[in-house]
Amino acid sequence: MSRENDTGFLAAVWHGAGDVRIERRPRRPLRNGEVRLAVSFCGICGSDLHEYANGPHAIPVGKPHRVSGETAPLVIGHEFTGVVTEAAAGVAIAVGTRVAVEPEYRCGSCEACRRGEYNLCIDMGFAGLMGSGGMSEEAIVPAYMLHPLPDAVTDRQAAVLEPAAVALHALRRGRVRAGDTVAVAGAGPIGLLIAQLARVAGARRVVVSDVSEVRLALARDLGATDIVDATDQDLAAVANGVDVAFEAVGIQSTLDAAFASVRKGGRVVLVGLCNGRVSLDGFDMVNRELELIASVGYRDIYPDLIGMIASGLFDPSRIVTRDVPLTDAVTDGLERLRKPGDDVKILINPQEKGERS
Amino acid sequence: MSRENDTGFLAAVWHGAGDVRIERRPRRPLRNGEVRLAVSFCGICGSDLHEYANGPHAIPVGKPHRVSGETAPLVIGHEFTGVVTEAAAGVAIAVGTRVAVEPEYRCGSCEACRRGEYNLCIDMGFAGLMGSGGMSEEAIVPAYMLHPLPDAVTDRQAAVLEPAAVALHALRRGRVRAGDTVAVAGAGPIGLLIAQLARVAGARRVVVSDVSEVRLALARDLGATDIVDATDQDLAAVANGVDVAFEAVGIQSTLDAAFASVRKGGRVVLVGLCNGRVSLDGFDMVNRELELIASVGYRDIYPDLIGMIASGLFDPSRIVTRDVPLTDAVTDGLERLRKPGDDVKILINPQEKGERS
Ligand SMILES: [Zn+2]
Ligand SMILES: [Zn+2]
Repeated sequence: MSRENDTGFLAAVWHGAGDVRIERRPRRPLRNGEVRLAVSFCGICGSDLHEYANGPHAIPVGKPHRVSGETAPLVIGHEFTGVVTEAAAGVAIAVGTRVAVEPEYRCGSCEACRRGEYNLCIDMGFAGLMGSGGMSEEAIVPAYMLHPLPDAVTDRQAAVLEPAAVALHALRRGRVRAGDTVAVAGAGPIGLLIAQLARVAGARRVVVSDVSEVRLALARDLGATDIVDATDQDLAAVANGVDVAFEAVGIQSTLDAAFASVRKGGRVVLVGLCNGRVSLDGFDMVNRELELIASVGYRDIYPDLIGMIASGLFDPSRIVTRDVPLTDAVTDGLERLRKPGDDVKILINPQEKGERS
Repeated sequence: MSRENDTGFLAAVWHGAGDVRIERRPRRPLRNGEVRLAVSFCGICGSDLHEYANGPHAIPVGKPHRVSGETAPLVIGHEFTGVVTEAAAGVAIAVGTRVAVEPEYRCGSCEACRRGEYNLCIDMGFAGLMGSGGMSEEAIVPAYMLHPLPDAVTDRQAAVLEPAAVALHALRRGRVRAGDTVAVAGAGPIGLLIAQLARVAGARRVVVSDVSEVRLALARDLGATDIVDATDQDLAAVANGVDVAFEAVGIQSTLDAAFASVRKGGRVVLVGLCNGRVSLDGFDMVNRELELIASVGYRDIYPDLIGMIASGLFDPSRIVTRDVPLTDAVTDGLERLRKPGDDVKILINPQEKGERS
């Protein structure tokens, strides 16, 4: 790492399935409306893993994404936070401002964007999947993605804002109210944050199921009132008719468990991304007057979350199980999460030098 | 029909599949909280047909229903209206009052009932399916089922309040707002009333699909802006991304059509009672952030509907295609609806004498 800054910056670059390289990228000038950041932290998301394991799924190859204009190879990582180092002319943000990045692209002009539902933009995408992201020493993003951070929110907390936004949006989609009862099928990062935020939202019972004892113990620490080892226990039996159940895995068996866990008139929120078709009991669904509510991404939620963290309501960084230097992002990050294990959220730190630097 | 009143009353009685008899029933004294009615009209519902064709489905045989305490043979028909002829001691309703019957039983003490969601009562049932109904000269019902009718609502309109209640509850479940766009898959009585009420609710487009030209023409008369002959046209192509789609058939193909008809962020309301499991594209559902909302029966809606009709907003009796005397209820009612045809809603009139009387 003896090269000067003007030789570019170090980044984790997706070239193909199984081929993410920690390599130097050239610095380019900012375009209109853009901001350059020194990245503080970038979390690894399940979708990053998915692209690494057997992509491309969302990463554009050949045909550029319509908003980012980019194709692979590109810098992965969409859960990032940093400090402004440069802003394009006319962008009203001071160099040195600590910011969280809300990485959803938006065209700004489609029907969904005009309605304010920019998570449903016709050109929906994420910086770090459909365009350059933040698993990198530096990142360039459109200024509309930035949310200034108060001192009360740490960099490590800000790096977990993105999955927390997914979780809070799902809770809002499920219309969880104080006093409700909640079940969560799956204690991955999203399921754990849903459980944690459900307690913040005043759920009087939060039942979480998973197959990992470590994750279940973390769920308990984060506020789950009941934990269910899905290897030999039945979520529905413990849930016993909750108001809202969250499916946070994306497979048939957990969807069935979620439906079995809600009361008459209850709601199932589908957060896990299913591979294709799933089935449900249409007769039961009508007779019990259930709802199946999908949730994707988030909108209008970062400022609320930042305020929640700043005011001490919750700490999303409690799901972080490991910090890894950028130089080791593949070997100690992607590869570790790819194998069965108890890690939940791994943060990549581009400012720290690792063994391979 | 030369017998005196004290020999009882004439009624359509379900004895078994294919065995509904027009026969005299003995009059019994009222119990606490009950009211006796002279029935003005009783509509035939799809569920009556279902019981006639290959029941029992909902009709209790052997084991009495927990609220009605009744078993077959029993008087069918739950879409009825009439005039109070007798009220149990302490029931505050005057003899001679014209009333509509909201036929949902409720236990009054289960969790759902306490929450006011009595359509989800643990002992859910309908007078006319799980207990004696109104396809009869006389009926006895609990007083809580009665809604007095103003002069501005006719008996024939009141007889269609029940399916209109199903339709309005479905519209409310789907959160249809003025200015929204709506698709309806299936122009049976419920689909037609949903289409009619969607226009009343201010939907700017109402696209209705069916396979019957006669029903589609009626849909057009009732306010549908676009009709789709499902034998050779695609609902989704005409709907082109509506806000809310209603599945009013209960089969896989119309459910698929409903999902294909909504916009990103749209809602599918499941009103048709499916036979068992159905499938949907879970990947698409999350990516487009859709909702599948079941709707069953109704609650807190009769007074609103009565006011809507009285104030001239709509006339639910426009879906009535035939009036039939009680004596001909099987031959000219159930049998006619059982065969393919263009009838939509048939009203049974117990006060008129038919050919077989
Ligand atoms: Zn857009
Ligand atoms: Zn009840």
